[in-house]
Amino acid sequence: MAAATEARIGIINVSDRAAAGIYEDLPGKAVVAALGEYLLSPWNSEYRVIPDERDQLTAAMAEMADDKGCCLIVTTGGTGPAVRDVTPEATEDACEKMLPGFGELMRQVSLQYVPTAILSRQTAGVRGSTLIVNLPGRPRAIRQCLDAVFPAIPYCVDLVGGPRLEVNPEVVKAFRPGEGKPAPASS
Amino acid sequence: MAAATEARIGIINVSDRAAAGIYEDLPGKAVVAALGEYLLSPWNSEYRVIPDERDQLTAAMAEMADDKGCCLIVTTGGTGPAVRDVTPEATEDACEKMLPGFGELMRQVSLQYVPTAILSRQTAGVRGSTLIVNLPGRPRAIRQCLDAVFPAIPYCVDLVGGPRLEVNPEVVKAFRPGEGKPAPASS
Amino acid sequence: MAAATEARIGIINVSDRAAAGIYEDLPGKAVVAALGEYLLSPWNSEYRVIPDERDQLTAAMAEMADDKGCCLIVTTGGTGPAVRDVTPEATEDACEKMLPGFGELMRQVSLQYVPTAILSRQTAGVRGSTLIVNLPGRPRAIRQCLDAVFPAIPYCVDLVGGPRLEVNPEVVKAFRPGEGKPAPASS
Repeated sequence: MAAATEARIGIINVSDRAAAGIYEDLPGKAVVAALGEYLLSPWNSEYRVIPDERDQLTAAMAEMADDKGCCLIVTTGGTGPAVRDVTPEATEDACEKMLPGFGELMRQVSLQYVPTAILSRQTAGVRGSTLIVNLPGRPRAIRQCLDAVFPAIPYCVDLVGGPRLEVNPEVVKAFRPGEGKPAPASS
Repeated sequence: MAAATEARIGIINVSDRAAAGIYEDLPGKAVVAALGEYLLSPWNSEYRVIPDERDQLTAAMAEMADDKGCCLIVTTGGTGPAVRDVTPEATEDACEKMLPGFGELMRQVSLQYVPTAILSRQTAGVRGSTLIVNLPGRPRAIRQCLDAVFPAIPYCVDLVGGPRLEVNPEVVKAFRPGEGKPAPASS
Repeated sequence: MAAATEARIGIINVSDRAAAGIYEDLPGKAVVAALGEYLLSPWNSEYRVIPDERDQLTAAMAEMADDKGCCLIVTTGGTGPAVRDVTPEATEDACEKMLPGFGELMRQVSLQYVPTAILSRQTAGVRGSTLIVNLPGRPRAIRQCLDAVFPAIPYCVDLVGGPRLEVNPEVVKAFRPGEGKPAPASS
């Protein structure tokens, strides 16, 4: 395998209370920890804690994608039905293409734990060469969702023109059509 | 538990034939019967039978939400692919936020009974402090769908600022994060 | 059963490379083969190979629906996250109503084979009296997806005013509410 370009990954913790310093930024840390376990190829992060403001969120996604060269942006929080929850709307504003299969699978996985999983509006989409994925705000749910969708992420990043991400097959089975057998289905 | 405000729930049977008096209003009765079994806290209903007209439907949802103070509006019928089926469009017109997880779960549950479940376009969304949920038009399918999504409804009503709904745990397991164990997953 | 009108079915292979003659048109052949096995009632096809151009695709769908009288249009390819993949957008442009249940079920079925199924944005919708369904581009995935959704297609075509499609019950179980027992659920 060719040496990969160092991948840049954006992480946005969307939370009024974390942005105001009232809550500790546990969601962001959960994402960093998961990516650290998944990825074998070198990567670095762009990191933000942003209040639940649609315009600020869209601007942060655009900057991370267009100016900072992130191949992947992961958000946490702000996907529920409450009036301040606007992460999916900001993601749609930022993206040219939506990928409804991410939200469907994450809700299906979360439904195995809590019936309120159907309240999550989390989605994913593509802006230029950047994949943007919404995750929930609770650290345990973050990991459940990321474990479910990450097998498809390296190939998606390939398809949109990002760097090649190599993962640790003992932690997560990434699948690229044409490269060996698919991971066994988990559901 | 504090005494709950009397909750007002809107029920709209969307049907050209029921509105014209050709069909008996069985779907509306099925919803009333289900809610009567689910809810322990006091509630009353706003009730309409409306033809499949997008503008009339949106106006009825808006009135029930904004003027009548309904915390929950349940529609029956009008979610199929036929030209007169416009309930999902009227719901989108009425709502600020859509909740795709409701439709996904209801279709998945209905698929256990009929392969034509994928033809249903039923959805849910939030208008201000009101949750609006589309159900199918056949009484048996109404109950199957409502049983599937109701566990998440009281918490959703909490999140959008409605009254606290208490349910009968022997009929339906409502789940509020932070209040004890989640209901075991059914799928 | 009354003799059915000869049904016309549109098949569009969406592929830059097939349109340029670089790839053999295997996806289109896979669709023709599947329909030939499913359908007992007489049918004929309108057939195109079109590059991944949104406006050309929408125009082809409109012509097949409005001028050629197709009751069903099936597309293959162009549903992924890459910049040239625009089939779902062209389908939305062409349709008055979207049917999200088709995409949900096809992704769920494909997930049993490959975790990258969530990258597919395939959808379905209705334009006038025509059902339009997006399929993936790989022949094996085409058949898996079509097998999953075809049981609902004859009834959908009925509902939007198309001709009655009769299927071979030894190959696929079509279901029409009110006509005998539903097909047993496969998931």
